[in-house]
Amino acid sequence: MSGIVTTGEKRLVLASGRAHPVLAQEVAEELGVEVLPMDAWDFANGEIYVRYGESVRGTDVFVLQSHPAPINTWVMEHLIMIDALKRASAKRITAIAPSFPYARQDKKHRGREPISARLMADLYETAGVDRMISVDLHAPQVQGYFNRPLDHLMALPILADYVQRKYGEEDIAVVSPDAGRIRVAEQWSKRLGGVNLAFIHKTRDTTRPNQAVAKRVIGDVTGKTCILVDDMIDTAGTIVQASDALIANGAASVVIATTHPILSDPATERLKNSQVREVVCTNTLPVPPEKQFDRLTQLSIAPLLARAIRAVFDDGSVTSLFDGEV
Amino acid sequence: MSGIVTTGEKRLVLASGRAHPVLAQEVAEELGVEVLPMDAWDFANGEIYVRYGESVRGTDVFVLQSHPAPINTWVMEHLIMIDALKRASAKRITAIAPSFPYARQDKKHRGREPISARLMADLYETAGVDRMISVDLHAPQVQGYFNRPLDHLMALPILADYVQRKYGEEDIAVVSPDAGRIRVAEQWSKRLGGVNLAFIHKTRDTTRPNQAVAKRVIGDVTGKTCILVDDMIDTAGTIVQASDALIANGAASVVIATTHPILSDPATERLKNSQVREVVCTNTLPVPPEKQFDRLTQLSIAPLLARAIRAVFDDGSVTSLFDGEV
Amino acid sequence: MSGIVTTGEKRLVLASGRAHPVLAQEVAEELGVEVLPMDAWDFANGEIYVRYGESVRGTDVFVLQSHPAPINTWVMEHLIMIDALKRASAKRITAIAPSFPYARQDKKHRGREPISARLMADLYETAGVDRMISVDLHAPQVQGYFNRPLDHLMALPILADYVQRKYGEEDIAVVSPDAGRIRVAEQWSKRLGGVNLAFIHKTRDTTRPNQAVAKRVIGDVTGKTCILVDDMIDTAGTIVQASDALIANGAASVVIATTHPILSDPATERLKNSQVREVVCTNTLPVPPEKQFDRLTQLSIAPLLARAIRAVFDDGSVTSLFDGEV
Amino acid sequence: MSGIVTTGEKRLVLASGRAHPVLAQEVAEELGVEVLPMDAWDFANGEIYVRYGESVRGTDVFVLQSHPAPINTWVMEHLIMIDALKRASAKRITAIAPSFPYARQDKKHRGREPISARLMADLYETAGVDRMISVDLHAPQVQGYFNRPLDHLMALPILADYVQRKYGEEDIAVVSPDAGRIRVAEQWSKRLGGVNLAFIHKTRDTTRPNQAVAKRVIGDVTGKTCILVDDMIDTAGTIVQASDALIANGAASVVIATTHPILSDPATERLKNSQVREVVCTNTLPVPPEKQFDRLTQLSIAPLLARAIRAVFDDGSVTSLFDGEV
Amino acid sequence: MSGIVTTGEKRLVLASGRAHPVLAQEVAEELGVEVLPMDAWDFANGEIYVRYGESVRGTDVFVLQSHPAPINTWVMEHLIMIDALKRASAKRITAIAPSFPYARQDKKHRGREPISARLMADLYETAGVDRMISVDLHAPQVQGYFNRPLDHLMALPILADYVQRKYGEEDIAVVSPDAGRIRVAEQWSKRLGGVNLAFIHKTRDTTRPNQAVAKRVIGDVTGKTCILVDDMIDTAGTIVQASDALIANGAASVVIATTHPILSDPATERLKNSQVREVVCTNTLPVPPEKQFDRLTQLSIAPLLARAIRAVFDDGSVTSLFDGEV
Amino acid sequence: MSGIVTTGEKRLVLASGRAHPVLAQEVAEELGVEVLPMDAWDFANGEIYVRYGESVRGTDVFVLQSHPAPINTWVMEHLIMIDALKRASAKRITAIAPSFPYARQDKKHRGREPISARLMADLYETAGVDRMISVDLHAPQVQGYFNRPLDHLMALPILADYVQRKYGEEDIAVVSPDAGRIRVAEQWSKRLGGVNLAFIHKTRDTTRPNQAVAKRVIGDVTGKTCILVDDMIDTAGTIVQASDALIANGAASVVIATTHPILSDPATERLKNSQVREVVCTNTLPVPPEKQFDRLTQLSIAPLLARAIRAVFDDGSVTSLFDGEV
Repeated sequence: MSGIVTTGEKRLVLASGRAHPVLAQEVAEELGVEVLPMDAWDFANGEIYVRYGESVRGTDVFVLQSHPAPINTWVMEHLIMIDALKRASAKRITAIAPSFPYARQDKKHRGREPISARLMADLYETAGVDRMISVDLHAPQVQGYFNRPLDHLMALPILADYVQRKYGEEDIAVVSPDAGRIRVAEQWSKRLGGVNLAFIHKTRDTTRPNQAVAKRVIGDVTGKTCILVDDMIDTAGTIVQASDALIANGAASVVIATTHPILSDPATERLKNSQVREVVCTNTLPVPPEKQFDRLTQLSIAPLLARAIRAVFDDGSVTSLFDGEV
Repeated sequence: MSGIVTTGEKRLVLASGRAHPVLAQEVAEELGVEVLPMDAWDFANGEIYVRYGESVRGTDVFVLQSHPAPINTWVMEHLIMIDALKRASAKRITAIAPSFPYARQDKKHRGREPISARLMADLYETAGVDRMISVDLHAPQVQGYFNRPLDHLMALPILADYVQRKYGEEDIAVVSPDAGRIRVAEQWSKRLGGVNLAFIHKTRDTTRPNQAVAKRVIGDVTGKTCILVDDMIDTAGTIVQASDALIANGAASVVIATTHPILSDPATERLKNSQVREVVCTNTLPVPPEKQFDRLTQLSIAPLLARAIRAVFDDGSVTSLFDGEV
Repeated sequence: MSGIVTTGEKRLVLASGRAHPVLAQEVAEELGVEVLPMDAWDFANGEIYVRYGESVRGTDVFVLQSHPAPINTWVMEHLIMIDALKRASAKRITAIAPSFPYARQDKKHRGREPISARLMADLYETAGVDRMISVDLHAPQVQGYFNRPLDHLMALPILADYVQRKYGEEDIAVVSPDAGRIRVAEQWSKRLGGVNLAFIHKTRDTTRPNQAVAKRVIGDVTGKTCILVDDMIDTAGTIVQASDALIANGAASVVIATTHPILSDPATERLKNSQVREVVCTNTLPVPPEKQFDRLTQLSIAPLLARAIRAVFDDGSVTSLFDGEV
Repeated sequence: MSGIVTTGEKRLVLASGRAHPVLAQEVAEELGVEVLPMDAWDFANGEIYVRYGESVRGTDVFVLQSHPAPINTWVMEHLIMIDALKRASAKRITAIAPSFPYARQDKKHRGREPISARLMADLYETAGVDRMISVDLHAPQVQGYFNRPLDHLMALPILADYVQRKYGEEDIAVVSPDAGRIRVAEQWSKRLGGVNLAFIHKTRDTTRPNQAVAKRVIGDVTGKTCILVDDMIDTAGTIVQASDALIANGAASVVIATTHPILSDPATERLKNSQVREVVCTNTLPVPPEKQFDRLTQLSIAPLLARAIRAVFDDGSVTSLFDGEV
Repeated sequence: MSGIVTTGEKRLVLASGRAHPVLAQEVAEELGVEVLPMDAWDFANGEIYVRYGESVRGTDVFVLQSHPAPINTWVMEHLIMIDALKRASAKRITAIAPSFPYARQDKKHRGREPISARLMADLYETAGVDRMISVDLHAPQVQGYFNRPLDHLMALPILADYVQRKYGEEDIAVVSPDAGRIRVAEQWSKRLGGVNLAFIHKTRDTTRPNQAVAKRVIGDVTGKTCILVDDMIDTAGTIVQASDALIANGAASVVIATTHPILSDPATERLKNSQVREVVCTNTLPVPPEKQFDRLTQLSIAPLLARAIRAVFDDGSVTSLFDGEV
Repeated sequence: MSGIVTTGEKRLVLASGRAHPVLAQEVAEELGVEVLPMDAWDFANGEIYVRYGESVRGTDVFVLQSHPAPINTWVMEHLIMIDALKRASAKRITAIAPSFPYARQDKKHRGREPISARLMADLYETAGVDRMISVDLHAPQVQGYFNRPLDHLMALPILADYVQRKYGEEDIAVVSPDAGRIRVAEQWSKRLGGVNLAFIHKTRDTTRPNQAVAKRVIGDVTGKTCILVDDMIDTAGTIVQASDALIANGAASVVIATTHPILSDPATERLKNSQVREVVCTNTLPVPPEKQFDRLTQLSIAPLLARAIRAVFDDGSVTSLFDGEV
């Protein structure tokens, strides 16, 4: 039989965009690799240029990008990096987007709107990605927007175990800031051993016309340490109002736990001025020094990402990282 | 300039699968057309044969199929009908699936599951459909699973107006049977003038080990006419338990309102034996005579479908049918 | 050079739908593996749920489904299983459809018909299958409907060798039940050492108007053991009439050989009541106990499927299983 | 409402490759249009250049190409013409390939072969064609290789009516040159009023080893005018042998009827030297003067193509041109 | 025949992103329409939200976006607007990108680079655009990156006619700033009546090692009014050096003519401090007040865009706008 | 865990079309393999038949085809070979087209033209190729027409090193035959140590009306050995005129260096009759004996192709073959 025969081998490579180099460094250290060298800079009009410093031919590349502001820049850099990997003959490309961009625009709330989350999934497929890894999608249905394998990781064990260690002795209630996210609160409640559950219900205040909305607490929070859980905190307006409502309804204290710390202005200001006891989040998004404050605790998502990368590379089970829940 | 020039015209045609001929007939009457003649029968092993009795070349076809049991048969018939329309040179094909098949499998609840709702959307695209119309998708994100225009209609005005007319004088509360569907209940509450809201919270009963679940009512229902709303009723187990819990918590009476009456056995038995005052639904799915009962009211979705079809055909606004909400 | 390097390996996994577990078990035994554990059940309205019990990440999965009645259910289960495998990161997915569904609708016999066999091929591609294996396609052109590799296996060696062993001493003729399948009969004739060939020609009986059709035997069958060959037997009407015509034309006896025993009612009744000496078939489709009868012999296709699977997995030659003929 | 509104209109345009300008001219005259002006020439290495002489923006273009030798040149010219039409904003492009290229390679006869007919269908889709028109596909399944509408026309009425007019008074039998094409012969038999049917069966001559093949006539042809039908005549070897076998078996005379006159060398020589009474064909392919001979009759396919074009343009029924048969 | 028949009509709609509202307004006025009302704003993290204020169902939409800094934001807004149009059932969507984004990254200059211009074309196709219009692509091959019709407009007539009117009496030479763009200079020379041509050749200065590059003028410019032409001016470094070299080589004066005024910092500073007599450009990109200066002349591209839009809408010829040259 | 586990391996196979067997043989020898056995022949009408003589299941196939006249035949053979490889389950298919077909039609020079180079790239993708290798694309942007990895090799080192060895002692100038290819001349100049650069500028001769074009030499060539460089020589008309112009402008001698020797008639005649000192080219295209002449030197591209194939197979770096330039 004609031809040349050799044994196949595979090589794991970690690439990273410029949005959150610290996270990339942490993941690289967990994996015991170096981040792939890359030249990347912006033209004066914002056009991005990238070039890898090493051959990636035949490799199994995991290309990590965080998506803080300015988010469109980081999405585009991610896509361009993927295009370059594809044309440089990477064997398999896994995009890691710890906080899926435009996840909130996951449906048409009204007519003539886009479904930008689906568009993002399609843009990644078009650029040439083979698979994705993301953490705590705003809606789990977004996993179906991407038509290739998407490993959906959960930060809940990281956050909940921290809360358990620190507040486990107190009388805890888990609170959802609105009706739409009660399912996540239920998962928290289960993880924390079946503690009480409550949620905030927005009602139109009938005594004051036009847009005025009252926050009603449904469920019992009196005297409890309320763990107010949400997937992301953007400007923190809603969550701080929720916290105020809890205190007003007799809560002993409020701890906020969230995966994605967007913390757009004036989030930090609002949270610092609030009665919130602690804000616990991960580092799926970078929090620049000027947005940090005493009561903010950022837990690293890097060990989780590294374990998922390694499981994907080794054809191990990612599901088993979460006891079968995805 | 060489060539032949004529004025373009367009022709609306309504085709229908065999799952729910009564609905097709109602829609045809609303539109003032005949249903497109079609031969359709099953081979002994279940393979479906279809052939249209008239030319559809260049037409704007709306092909309606309901999706009751046996649902796979009706999905496949729908796809085969679309294939035949495509090959027969229909100009545009709009699939109408009043109850989107497999809508409940819209995400991976656990690892190694399919996302069958996305698969369905892809199968329809593959068969050659240009656009879809559906009513009350289980999750609004499913709209994004289909990558072409999908007009998402709402049965809420039909159902809520009926409830308003019949029970508007009583002290109404809108109740969601679980945490995940409170958003829909909020829309009902708004439509009914801002009435009270409640939901049923499932909790693990700590006094009895293994799978035992208690239903806790969150929100005030005492003395109220509870409108228990859900997008579909399948075997009616959950909804009847929810009704029992409401009565046990002091509700004056319970009316169930739902869009899709799947009513798989033993739904009818359960509902007849329950304390439910009335079950209001639409006819997106057929309810065969043996499953009907006195307290079941089926409102026709045909006028809504016909208006949407006409708006699509005339390039009118479907959004405007719902005051901009989709 | 940055990164982690390991040696690649590959793992063969056999999954199976619920249509024909006995065949899956036989194939598994031939291969020396276990069938992949899977939860699968139906919702009351017929929606199918599946979930695999083990990680399939990175595996080379062969997913077997037989397609008896109710065929649409089994096709859909097959597609859903493939979707779940794709999303669970199987490396390569080979669908095995021993009897290709809707193979008979492989062309438009008249205007405004579908080409359902092409549609099926497209549905499998859409669900995410990388390759297929099938046995004795109704028309060989169906191989071209699927745009990825399709290994087309032939049951003829299995069936013909059995016939040769049992009837080889007699004076054999191979008979095609209609003009369209004479090519297959020619292959049989060649395999059996160049025995005589005949076929049944349907002619409009000119003495009786309307639909009446006479069966004329073209070729010499007098005193011969006629091997009546076809790819499938559905209701057995045509084949029993062909058998009768052969007997009427002086055939000594008739043996039917077929690959796919659909045996829809009233096939078993017709065959039992006929003068047919034996019906030989494979088990590409299950024959339930109530459809079995003394003169029916079912030969297992499992060894052939297992050899093909192994050749695909090992990058061996499938063509060589058939001496270059496909 | 903002915007500009006008009435839509549509314009039919006929474009033609360089393979068979006479046919294009005939079709244009039937339609009452001019063929679209086009510059087309070959670079010295065979690369083809085309440019249209008029704007085609928004038009409904029918682009006709015949596929004689050198067939690859004409296929490529067809594809390039379609690319130019697409980029010049034609609204709809219908490729007319009267004799579908590579139609004979419609399946894998043996392992490691291409399925070139499917490849051709895909190349046309890739170039940007919206639909196709073809005449008498070698296998009807090829219609399913193209995944958009393909209007499959039949030359049988043209050919059979000519035969009926000329030989209708004689005792006619329809003969298929091999087992695989008996279906077509059956259609001829039906069209000619149910006349007798026969076919030629190739058998290995047992008295002479190695490759020697005898032609056996199956069916009665004694004293009859045999109409030997096939979809194409290439080198005419098989068909002339079939004719000889018929004469040897007592046929009164042999008339050959075929749709596609490929007539590769030495077809004309063979036919002129044979006992064939007449060869009737269409002009789906050009027959250059040096290949014509007295007993060759070429009937124009142009009226049929023109009627189909007009039906497609006018959204009329093509099926009705053939009484529902396709 | 069943169905409803109406006359088709078509409606032109002009939508615009937020990058350059003045240009959209000018185009709207040329067309005599209003720009489609749209809500558009940014989330704090940069995510863009858009919603149209009117139904676009069935319309022929031209969606204009300019691409100045921050370019990734404007590309993403463009894509999201297209997604919303697609899902809102626009009949045809034409994206107008007067300056094609990332046009300079149109090839791999070195290994492991992306081809971002191709990526952009693919992103637009993915979002759902049917066709594009652009002006003076950096390389004409970019037209082929988009696989649907792209009307490529030329600003040269606008710019050259202005130059002719103003400087036509002087002794003009056309100069290309580097070897790669001499073709454009040749077109200018032809348009200006065959005036002299020169170009700047970069040579490594052999007297100073490392990166030092000398600008050599090839061609005669002594005493001439040099029209230095380029498709875009970014930071103006190269073009000002070219101007200096021309003056040093005896040019009487230098006028810069360019289509796309990117004018990234410190372009304005450099140009103001240079000996350049005038900079003529179009408004494919906005020039904010702080970047404008006395010697900068901006000619409107709006009349050209409006004529192209109208030709596309009316199925007229765009080619004819440029005498057949594209 | 169920299943069978083995170590993966990979096998390199070299297949070749019939256009240039000598080149395939040279590459095979460089690699130390045999060319894959293949039956290939033409039907009388030009249809091509191919079949491989060995299993290619699971292999890494490099399928080489040169593209001389008749180019459409060789393109089609290439596509058909790829289709057969795909259906025969090759694991990865790399098409090698040393001279990319239709590379000159890489843009619309005027309206209503095709972009045939893009079409070719799409045809290769459709046939099923995973990646390509080509040498000296006419425009580097063509690399972006193919949307999968395309390794773009450069013959410049081979050609320039030969020139350096032979003419390095003389006073060399590099000359581009027109303005559009000066970039390539710049690369030559750099490789040859920074020698002088010139180009030929076509100007309309103002003294003679209509189409007359004068060739003007821009840059200093007096007394120099001019290396006239171009990517291809077709009929040699332009290049011989350029040579004449150089001699007329005082050049000492002219050597032509080109990658692709198309040499369509009357190229050989023209070159033999010219004052050109030597023509140096590669063998990306075969030069038949009747087109060869004394002053023609053909350098083999086989070592370069073999090194690239080996790098692709071994996941090595192709970029490194060219010091990072591509």
